Amino acid sequence: MEKKSEEQKSNVGLTVKKHEDFSEWFTQILEKAELVDLRLDVKGFTVIRPWAAMTMENMFEHLEKELQKKGHRPTFMPSVIPKENLTRESEHVKGFTPEVFWLKDTGDNKELALRPTSETLYTPMFKLWIRSHRDLPLKLYQRGSVFRLDTKATRPLIRGREFIWIECHDAFETKEQAEAQVQEDIDTTEKVMHKIYGVPFLPMKRPEWDKFAGAEYTVGSDCFMPDGKLIQQPSTHLMGQKFSKAFNATFKNQEGHEEYLWTTAYGPAVSRILASVIATHGDDSGLILPYALSPIQVIIVPIFNAENKNKILKKSKEILNKLEKEKIKVEIDERDYKRPGEKYHIWELKGVPFRIEFGEKELEKDEIVLFTRDTKEKSKLKLKDLKQISKLGSDFDQRLLEKADKFIEKRIINCSSKKEIKETLSSGKVARVSFCSTDKSGVQCAEIVEREFSGDVRGTMANKNEKPEGNCLFCGKPATKVVYIGRSY
Amino acid sequence: MEKKSEEQKSNVGLTVKKHEDFSEWFTQILEKAELVDLRLDVKGFTVIRPWAAMTMENMFEHLEKELQKKGHRPTFMPSVIPKENLTRESEHVKGFTPEVFWLKDTGDNKELALRPTSETLYTPMFKLWIRSHRDLPLKLYQRGSVFRLDTKATRPLIRGREFIWIECHDAFETKEQAEAQVQEDIDTTEKVMHKIYGVPFLPMKRPEWDKFAGAEYTVGSDCFMPDGKLIQQPSTHLMGQKFSKAFNATFKNQEGHEEYLWTTAYGPAVSRILASVIATHGDDSGLILPYALSPIQVIIVPIFNAENKNKILKKSKEILNKLEKEKIKVEIDERDYKRPGEKYHIWELKGVPFRIEFGEKELEKDEIVLFTRDTKEKSKLKLKDLKQISKLGSDFDQRLLEKADKFIEKRIINCSSKKEIKETLSSGKVARVSFCSTDKSGVQCAEIVEREFSGDVRGTMANKNEKPEGNCLFCGKPATKVVYIGRSY
Repeated sequence: MEKKSEEQKSNVGLTVKKHEDFSEWFTQILEKAELVDLRLDVKGFTVIRPWAAMTMENMFEHLEKELQKKGHRPTFMPSVIPKENLTRESEHVKGFTPEVFWLKDTGDNKELALRPTSETLYTPMFKLWIRSHRDLPLKLYQRGSVFRLDTKATRPLIRGREFIWIECHDAFETKEQAEAQVQEDIDTTEKVMHKIYGVPFLPMKRPEWDKFAGAEYTVGSDCFMPDGKLIQQPSTHLMGQKFSKAFNATFKNQEGHEEYLWTTAYGPAVSRILASVIATHGDDSGLILPYALSPIQVIIVPIFNAENKNKILKKSKEILNKLEKEKIKVEIDERDYKRPGEKYHIWELKGVPFRIEFGEKELEKDEIVLFTRDTKEKSKLKLKDLKQISKLGSDFDQRLLEKADKFIEKRIINCSSKKEIKETLSSGKVARVSFCSTDKSGVQCAEIVEREFSGDVRGTMANKNEKPEGNCLFCGKPATKVVYIGRSY
Repeated sequence: MEKKSEEQKSNVGLTVKKHEDFSEWFTQILEKAELVDLRLDVKGFTVIRPWAAMTMENMFEHLEKELQKKGHRPTFMPSVIPKENLTRESEHVKGFTPEVFWLKDTGDNKELALRPTSETLYTPMFKLWIRSHRDLPLKLYQRGSVFRLDTKATRPLIRGREFIWIECHDAFETKEQAEAQVQEDIDTTEKVMHKIYGVPFLPMKRPEWDKFAGAEYTVGSDCFMPDGKLIQQPSTHLMGQKFSKAFNATFKNQEGHEEYLWTTAYGPAVSRILASVIATHGDDSGLILPYALSPIQVIIVPIFNAENKNKILKKSKEILNKLEKEKIKVEIDERDYKRPGEKYHIWELKGVPFRIEFGEKELEKDEIVLFTRDTKEKSKLKLKDLKQISKLGSDFDQRLLEKADKFIEKRIINCSSKKEIKETLSSGKVARVSFCSTDKSGVQCAEIVEREFSGDVRGTMANKNEKPEGNCLFCGKPATKVVYIGRSY
């Protein structure tokens, strides 16, 4: 009996509105849409349930396809890194050592770390695999886990001690080619995260004091959470020759001279992108998954009684077969111990884009009732027109994209006074500000921003050159950059 | 200059014949076909290079598709297991504790192990996710790494301290359903490893003394290596109620009573299956990959000089486009700093099923020269008949399958004396023997087999009931089982 009541409780749906308490809404949706489970009770390590895992598998497919189209090839690197590798590049080791999980002695006189990121595995391999300019570019990736002993508060999907990602490591002849790769990586984020999943971002070239440990520079993708805070999505790094020098990874250039490789790294974390998808599109009834991403695109809920069960289910199967022929991902919820209303509720919570309701009335009229998750509208569709659902799916994704783009547009405010910055940040928006510098010399002003407004200088637009005006509001020196200031996760 | 000579050396091809020194042949092929790299120099941890990684990605696709068809859903479990979970089931902990990598203290008062296998992660989740018979069966899997501190000699792809696999964990209402799952798992191995990859196996129900730590029984898939030794491929385990009792994972049955779940586990290790594919099909020129598995199914080698380069490459592109339209995985090797002969050599080493040679002569005649990797025959094909390659690909795989099946058939010898067993094992074959028992009572006889013949009692056929004859050759008691005895990896 106790068990039963628990089951009912977990099915009553969200008890909080997204715009009233986003944090609690997010926590509830993770549990009630059966995305993750935290009850293993190990800080920063999350059990990812089938609904989230299937969605993430689709993300891997989209990302890997795009990466392969751009010349990347898969690899599998060990999950461990010998200490002598991890500590080769001095800035890298400073940045990552405090965050490393070490293995207990394995009896082999090797100190091994769980990889926090894999530059120090790929670069020594580049040294062995690349002999001349003819072997370049070399563009590799792997999907897998990395591990960081983050001491900050962990949040499922967003910040964990293990996270599931793709990391790309590329080697080039020249700095120009490596910088072009950084731009190509931004394009990959654009093509997949923005264009397919409808999650817009600001490609931010981070200030000098906020770059990846060991990089020449870093471009992070800043996405908005509904509470106005920014979250970093895929970042891409120009490593320059820092790692290649540390590992003595050279190649023979076209003139026959040995030179150090130019390398880049790009790391889309699928679990974290899922967090942004949930946060961007979800509503008070639950998740809304883009049509191109959802593990189930159409759920058929047959409405039957003991008498007409067989014929309703038979016809539902026919509808399923028709949709499968159109390569639509479709399932029937045949469970006879749940009422149709309960089923509607469950699949709305899980964010399935379309629901087909099919009962006696529809059977008679050769039609279906089609419920659309984002608009919550019901419409009728003749059985002979079922094919239209693919097109309706594209429209669905287009609506999500446009809505998200509109949200972000209104959130960036040009500010030319401290007062304006304060108001902007307090209202959950991002301030666009002329600023002294994003080199080391700007760090004092960034500290003022943090102290006075609890805001971060997130960086400059990485794919366009924006002209600053006047002087820096904090130090009075001539502004050299247009920066974006926001609060962040 | 030194670098150049190294490059040439690594390209000279295999210097040993497969049937003369299989072990050295295997080592050379791993390096020269650019499958793995051991120079990271961490015992048991292997860098897997793109050619092997792409092949393994195809394996994941085949296996996951088959598993999903059979109702499995993906998950992502943490890579770590808290000590209190790992040590819950007493036989499991005895079997696995010596092989576990532990993390150094993380400051959270939790002792964490790198997962050696994930029963102790899935079962506590089953307890939380399954309330009644309506939630059953629940069939889950994950792809990822597991870690075992194996102190035996490691061999790349075959035996490592980290290996890349899929593990399935399923829960059922009854023992019958769980046992049916074990048979379904054998069918999955059959459909993918045997039917697609052409690697035959004996599904061996292991003797009591050789089962998975914590299982009621284990069925391993024994494949032949060319030297006659057996290697275990995917194994499937009836866990029974051992783990569900340890974790108190119950469900309400159809009569309303709480009962313990019946669970199974199945673990295909893709890197190891790749080892069997290499070993089964490869020849003295290198790897031979099944058409359905190879990352490149057709490689086009254009034959050109400075004069006709443009027109030859243009036409080669047309050939590529035509094949791509047929969903054939095809690439052109355009490198102009390598001679055609060198390219032939490289792609034969990598095992690509078909090579298209295309030069001036072929251009004039509207045809191609088609080289077939396994038979090494060259034939001519008109450009208008390019579509035929898909069919030739199926024939290719059928030939590999039949050849491998024939090899295994001749390797199993009925033996009714110790002398016959000795001769059989010495000649790299497997002895089929009537035997006292595969319960604990048979262990003394198995020890005699090991001592006298360096052989292992691998088990009984798991999918058929074979009738023994007479008495056990070792203890003289009436034989109750037909067992298979072989030498193993």
